Amino acid sequence: MAVGQAYFPEMPVIQGVRLGSAKAGIKKPGRRDLVVIEVAEGSRVAGTFTRNAFCAAPVHVARRHLAHGGTRYLLINTGNANAGTGESGMRDAEACCQALSELTGTSAEAVLPFSTGVIGEPLPVERLRAGLPEAVSSLNDSGQAWRLAAEGILTTDTRAKGATATCDIDGQVVTINGISKGSGMIKPNMATMLGFVATDADIDQALLESLLRDGVDRSFNCITVDSDTSTNDACMLIATGRSARVASDEAIAEFRAALDRVLIELAQAIIRDGEGATKFITLDVSEARSRQEALDVAFTVAHSPLVKTALYASDANWGRILAAVGRAPVEDFDVGRVAIDLGDVRLVENGGRAASYSEQAGTTVMAQEEIAIRIRLGRGDFTATVWTSDLSHEYVSINADYRS
Amino acid sequence: MAVGQAYFPEMPVIQGVRLGSAKAGIKKPGRRDLVVIEVAEGSRVAGTFTRNAFCAAPVHVARRHLAHGGTRYLLINTGNANAGTGESGMRDAEACCQALSELTGTSAEAVLPFSTGVIGEPLPVERLRAGLPEAVSSLNDSGQAWRLAAEGILTTDTRAKGATATCDIDGQVVTINGISKGSGMIKPNMATMLGFVATDADIDQALLESLLRDGVDRSFNCITVDSDTSTNDACMLIATGRSARVASDEAIAEFRAALDRVLIELAQAIIRDGEGATKFITLDVSEARSRQEALDVAFTVAHSPLVKTALYASDANWGRILAAVGRAPVEDFDVGRVAIDLGDVRLVENGGRAASYSEQAGTTVMAQEEIAIRIRLGRGDFTATVWTSDLSHEYVSINADYRS
Repeated sequence: MAVGQAYFPEMPVIQGVRLGSAKAGIKKPGRRDLVVIEVAEGSRVAGTFTRNAFCAAPVHVARRHLAHGGTRYLLINTGNANAGTGESGMRDAEACCQALSELTGTSAEAVLPFSTGVIGEPLPVERLRAGLPEAVSSLNDSGQAWRLAAEGILTTDTRAKGATATCDIDGQVVTINGISKGSGMIKPNMATMLGFVATDADIDQALLESLLRDGVDRSFNCITVDSDTSTNDACMLIATGRSARVASDEAIAEFRAALDRVLIELAQAIIRDGEGATKFITLDVSEARSRQEALDVAFTVAHSPLVKTALYASDANWGRILAAVGRAPVEDFDVGRVAIDLGDVRLVENGGRAASYSEQAGTTVMAQEEIAIRIRLGRGDFTATVWTSDLSHEYVSINADYRS
Repeated sequence: MAVGQAYFPEMPVIQGVRLGSAKAGIKKPGRRDLVVIEVAEGSRVAGTFTRNAFCAAPVHVARRHLAHGGTRYLLINTGNANAGTGESGMRDAEACCQALSELTGTSAEAVLPFSTGVIGEPLPVERLRAGLPEAVSSLNDSGQAWRLAAEGILTTDTRAKGATATCDIDGQVVTINGISKGSGMIKPNMATMLGFVATDADIDQALLESLLRDGVDRSFNCITVDSDTSTNDACMLIATGRSARVASDEAIAEFRAALDRVLIELAQAIIRDGEGATKFITLDVSEARSRQEALDVAFTVAHSPLVKTALYASDANWGRILAAVGRAPVEDFDVGRVAIDLGDVRLVENGGRAASYSEQAGTTVMAQEEIAIRIRLGRGDFTATVWTSDLSHEYVSINADYRS
């Protein structure tokens, strides 16, 4: 299942970025499971990675290689996460970087490895290595190459996910393309289960890192399918510097807005394709004392299995939303000041059901595929928006039957 | 579904406690849904209540009446939680206390009200009031009365839950009986969705309160079905003073051990009967830096939908356990020191899969109905034990179809 129409945009060329892919048979044959992204010399690359303490071997290696500088290749496989694999997993990740560096005449440190798929199985290094020549020989900068790369990083996803935006910087067009994957084990903490975004803008390293960090905090870090933070999350932002320089306050604001559009669209695409998703839910929390408090309330509701099953059932069981808000970690919580709206229907005010509420009005909103829940805390000026999906029979089927 | 054999013990008499029940048709006809517990004059009563900020009207009223002292009656209905009902809910709860006080010749403050069931519907006060004479006239102290009371407080529960224990205090036998209910919206914070425990011991009020608080912290506060803290949780401990006095250190230790046995058995009974449960899971976390840290790790694993669906599938997908441990809120987490056992099979050590692990060994443990997961953090001396259930298709069915 998935919410809304599948849509993959026409991706324009990003000067300085080429993508290649291959069917390497990493987990099963006939599936596009290996992607190489080449970035031109002189590009700058920023990354955010999972905060899961058991982070995967490729996350360790990518972080170290990124710090080394001079990144030229991103090497991504699906079908195996190379996580929970200890020392041999680290050696496997290094061996893959080494293989790609030999093929392309770079150093192993110029390659950042990313893996997604089943946790705890040894990475089939030989199959991955055997797929590299095909991936490298197919490198090109077309929209089709972006689309094949987006397909080549999927696991339980049912759709390729891409987004693109342009902005005008000092009369020059700057383009931003991004692809992402993720469907289950989605509660990113720093980044999602793989997002790759590239722009032709010229941006200094420190600014690139701060733009990515801020953007991710308002996009991938604000989605949840099932509260489970993955061991392999990573989001990378590449700037090739072939178009305008982003340095002035005005240019930064312009670029940031376009980047955030891409990141939010990619993050939302993950929720629309969340495991078993039949609904796309926006949780808007306002009038909180801090951003963290607003996020805490939003995630408490977003993670509630009772709210998620009611959404699946299109059941306006607003008492479950109220109960979830009430158990959120909020100090000195005066529920008499709380208002909760379901779409344009007021559910809760003055500590209980709104006088104007009718079951029929609630049911009409709940029947929709995309639903907004707005929670006003009446305590301050901070807000947060979080996106989530429902909890369906298919979620249980996928995760009770599936190993990858 | 439920785990293990249904079992309701022979409940002995607690001198000074009588129980009555009735079928009042509060939500639907023909169901035992109204319970009255009478405690003899001079009894002491302690209570813990939900920390959900949207706590129900009867919780407010029971807390106020309890503080007033002189409790003589506990009035419990199922089928309607009287939660999220604002000011009129408070009036309804007071009206029910008033009705019982008139029938029994006590003050309204001597009655503590408890409600469980659907949130946000007005309490059908007239039906409840009409059922009171039958409940009062059936008051008696037999084991059968305890059993009918245990049945009369159920909602989605499939089994009545009771536990009993005795201890020897200065050569006198002290008896403790308890009943509980709860199956969904179970992640108590202070107490479960209704637990009533009575003893004939003679215990001072302050000691009674501290015994209950400590016991609940190791029992009801250590269970979770679905992470959703109810609006109506309450656990009450009654001491009628008809048997031995519990005051010396030795007597307190003896009594505490018996009380904890009853509380843990009642708490575990809720998990065994958790909504859709097919497995009973014990999470033992040890070598933590604090009790809170141990609880945080245990609850992170217990709430993980991916761990819960793997348990449902009897799939030894240990990578999901590792990923859940890794995202727990632990500062400076060195996963190289972590060891995870599934039953007697070592899953994880040295930051990855244990060398001795085999899929077959893991699968053998996962096929069992009762499974222990032991997580050793290698950081300190604190421990916690948490009990939980799995996440099944039936959980989704119950909560996508059900309103109460």
